[in-house]
Amino acid sequence: MVVLAVHGGAGGDGPWRGLTQADPARLDCMQRLLHDLGQRLADGDIDALEAVTLAVEAMEDEPLFNAGVGSVLDANGEVTMDASIMRGNDRSAGAVVNVQHASHPIRVANRVLHQGWPVMLVGEAADAFGEREGVTLHPNDRFITELRRAQWQKWKASTLRPGATDEDDEAVLDHDLEDTPGMGTVGAVALDRSGQLAAATSTGGMTGKPDGRVGDTPIIGAGTWCDDRVAVSCTGVGEAFIRTCAARTLAFHHERLGLDKAGQRVLDDVAPLGGRGGLIAVDAEGHVVLPFQTMLMYRGVYQNGDINVGVGPDWEP
Amino acid sequence: MVVLAVHGGAGGDGPWRGLTQADPARLDCMQRLLHDLGQRLADGDIDALEAVTLAVEAMEDEPLFNAGVGSVLDANGEVTMDASIMRGNDRSAGAVVNVQHASHPIRVANRVLHQGWPVMLVGEAADAFGEREGVTLHPNDRFITELRRAQWQKWKASTLRPGATDEDDEAVLDHDLEDTPGMGTVGAVALDRSGQLAAATSTGGMTGKPDGRVGDTPIIGAGTWCDDRVAVSCTGVGEAFIRTCAARTLAFHHERLGLDKAGQRVLDDVAPLGGRGGLIAVDAEGHVVLPFQTMLMYRGVYQNGDINVGVGPDWEP
Repeated sequence: MVVLAVHGGAGGDGPWRGLTQADPARLDCMQRLLHDLGQRLADGDIDALEAVTLAVEAMEDEPLFNAGVGSVLDANGEVTMDASIMRGNDRSAGAVVNVQHASHPIRVANRVLHQGWPVMLVGEAADAFGEREGVTLHPNDRFITELRRAQWQKWKASTLRPGATDEDDEAVLDHDLEDTPGMGTVGAVALDRSGQLAAATSTGGMTGKPDGRVGDTPIIGAGTWCDDRVAVSCTGVGEAFIRTCAARTLAFHHERLGLDKAGQRVLDDVAPLGGRGGLIAVDAEGHVVLPFQTMLMYRGVYQNGDINVGVGPDWEP
Repeated sequence: MVVLAVHGGAGGDGPWRGLTQADPARLDCMQRLLHDLGQRLADGDIDALEAVTLAVEAMEDEPLFNAGVGSVLDANGEVTMDASIMRGNDRSAGAVVNVQHASHPIRVANRVLHQGWPVMLVGEAADAFGEREGVTLHPNDRFITELRRAQWQKWKASTLRPGATDEDDEAVLDHDLEDTPGMGTVGAVALDRSGQLAAATSTGGMTGKPDGRVGDTPIIGAGTWCDDRVAVSCTGVGEAFIRTCAARTLAFHHERLGLDKAGQRVLDDVAPLGGRGGLIAVDAEGHVVLPFQTMLMYRGVYQNGDINVGVGPDWEP
């Protein structure tokens, strides 16, 4: 039994309104990576750690997810990316914060994990470490897409004109421009043939994020957790996930409640703190959950050769 | 019942060799702050959150602890400081990373908590936020003491000459120059008259820490945790505390095992990952534990008017 599950972020409010123009490309990206990496995982060609790294890299390369190329823009109109990764059997971990040049932030986090110490690197030092480890660096504007610039301009306009309504911004307002905090963060969890688990998460943060702000994605225990029983990747309003230590907490609940109730319990715990989002988790027996409390969560699972992907509330693995 | 407990870092290897020349000043600092703040906590003059903030500020001001003035120097010979704080009743939290100018990093973290969002700020943005919130900024060299410079020179010499032995560095070698990772990190936990809990931790990191490295101190769930049942502050080899989510894990064990066993269990969990250190914790019933697995931990407790401080293994609260 091998499992690979991915998410491409949770978000949206109100009733589910069906796929947007951009959704087929997002679903196609997940479908393709699950097909390719699921097979390699089943063949024993890659282990859980490499599977989650490659899965997240594929989503960092898809401009419609909020990670790597296509990350949202911060308050300065730049891309600043965070990522973390953890392996279950030895609880080794790697995390990078405010990366601005590494083509694949999750690969830098993976190299931090392999190096063993330190666990967490911030800013230019993280990019520089990535370069020494063979990760390609790009100028920051290589990560910026037209869609993200339009979202940023909409954010900027509403910041400059307090009280501005959505109607004022009609020129750039369409469904794909909506940008719930945490929307589009990507993550992966995997169980490989030898029973090992791994989890990985990567994000560009949120449009207009203030200088220096760190969300839950690079925080081991908040956005990402993995031990020898369960692997977890979260997405959503990051601050509530930090304040509940969401990913680590799932592992505790899992022991007593099983995976289904544990996933729900973590989201219930986040909600009173203003948190809204979702998570994916797989345990050592190959059970998978992908709960979310938002309108939608981009998600997909490879399990025993079967691949399922979905966006709205209409699908359960 | 009100409680205030503090630590000034865990460290040292081998058998306990008694107080060093610098220890009376450290003990005196803890004794004085416990006397002053314990009384104010008992009088209801300050709440748990303000008590832990003021306690950590007092230790940041003591040049012999590794936080604020007297922080150890990083690889560049500069001071870079981390701090985090959390309140139990609403699980509000604040954390700052790589602060270089704020006179009291824990006060900046406290202001981050009060602002509510974001929870975590990195680098210049954290200093700038502190200044806007009324925290005094200093030039970086105001934080540097002769002792820390000597420790850094010893580290630098051993880095430049791989294979150098302690004897080569005899000129600067004395007991007070020994600098176990995490040594001198400061923290406080408190229970106030209204039954509220809070926890705070602050550090200069470790001598020669590489650019961009973040340890456990500013990570909610790793170095600091507080909910409505227990408040925790950790000290030690930070990476293992991140990889075990040490402070958050204590709260889980506390539910099932009680505070004594929970504290020991967390340290037992850290050890196989190369972690060595200690922690302090207080629960909503006013029980306190201050376990450590190193040679010593600077620690003190105010409880019902009684004050006890200690360094070596010879004392239990």
